[in-house]
Amino acid sequence: MEKIENVLNFIVEIEKLKNVLRKTKPVGLDRYENSAEHSWHVCLSALMLKDFANEPINIDRVIKMLLIHDLGEIDVGDTIIYASETKKLKAEEAAGVKRILSILPEGMEEGCMELWHEFEAGETSDARFARAIDRVPPLLHNLHGDGHSWRKHGVSKERVFELNQRIELGSKELWAAIRDKLEEAVESGVLK
Amino acid sequence: MEKIENVLNFIVEIEKLKNVLRKTKPVGLDRYENSAEHSWHVCLSALMLKDFANEPINIDRVIKMLLIHDLGEIDVGDTIIYASETKKLKAEEAAGVKRILSILPEGMEEGCMELWHEFEAGETSDARFARAIDRVPPLLHNLHGDGHSWRKHGVSKERVFELNQRIELGSKELWAAIRDKLEEAVESGVLK
Repeated sequence: MEKIENVLNFIVEIEKLKNVLRKTKPVGLDRYENSAEHSWHVCLSALMLKDFANEPINIDRVIKMLLIHDLGEIDVGDTIIYASETKKLKAEEAAGVKRILSILPEGMEEGCMELWHEFEAGETSDARFARAIDRVPPLLHNLHGDGHSWRKHGVSKERVFELNQRIELGSKELWAAIRDKLEEAVESGVLK
Repeated sequence: MEKIENVLNFIVEIEKLKNVLRKTKPVGLDRYENSAEHSWHVCLSALMLKDFANEPINIDRVIKMLLIHDLGEIDVGDTIIYASETKKLKAEEAAGVKRILSILPEGMEEGCMELWHEFEAGETSDARFARAIDRVPPLLHNLHGDGHSWRKHGVSKERVFELNQRIELGSKELWAAIRDKLEEAVESGVLK
């Protein structure tokens, strides 16, 4: 009974991810996205895009990675990716994930923590694919939303192409499709 | 390239689930939950509660069920569960799910549609467990939030116990823990 209480406490604790606001607005909505709904969106996106992965992947591991990949933001908050991938911030996020997972019964923390680090390192085929998928919705938000986040944060087209090229590491075909859309956005003046 | 465009269109279409409001408020937040963040929450809850299932389950299938279980609400909206499980509404939801999945490339719709029906029927061990988990967060919202949704919608303690007893079909241990909390809520006057 004690173990199940620990999991129920964890379930309540992770509610806080619903209050972490990201930097883009979902297509058609005039509010910022939160990291919980984003996490759902990337899980389902990964499932539907799995056949476009460059390498063999285990989609079930990819989905688990994406379910937990933003838990560190409960303690640290969301930072725009174009400025956020620093060692200090990543260490703070890791500490946050560890704190939250430690609410779980003994023995459950480790596997999840490893999965989180694997995602962050991006050195396995599962992590490469998961990190590619993680980039897709925010780009679609900007592409369908007049580049609202790029403009607000002064993100140049060079930075957008440079950072998001990681999509190619997970799926060449996906990157080709997204790159076409980004190039159209440059032509139409949405991305400068 | 056409196939990937179809999936990207699907990814944009399902954004709408972020605008479907449910009937309970996440713990600590003074706003209603949306069905996208709820979907994330139940997926991660299922993963952490999997060892408490009564029967052997395939957690990867359970997670996939829960990723798609609310897609029908994009067309139909969310209805309070204490009044919503009618044949008419379920048929409308099924049509909604079918419409949304039909945006995907050919051949991808069927497996997901079957999974959605399996969840709704609740007749397999995976579906029984998924349906049990789906009930947990809204109960925690009420238990931690002064029974706000029970009070607003005039849901009696008899209805709460009756409907949520389905948790026991997926996990006796989970139901025992939740039932204790519900009984405490009755004693303290939060659930009447």
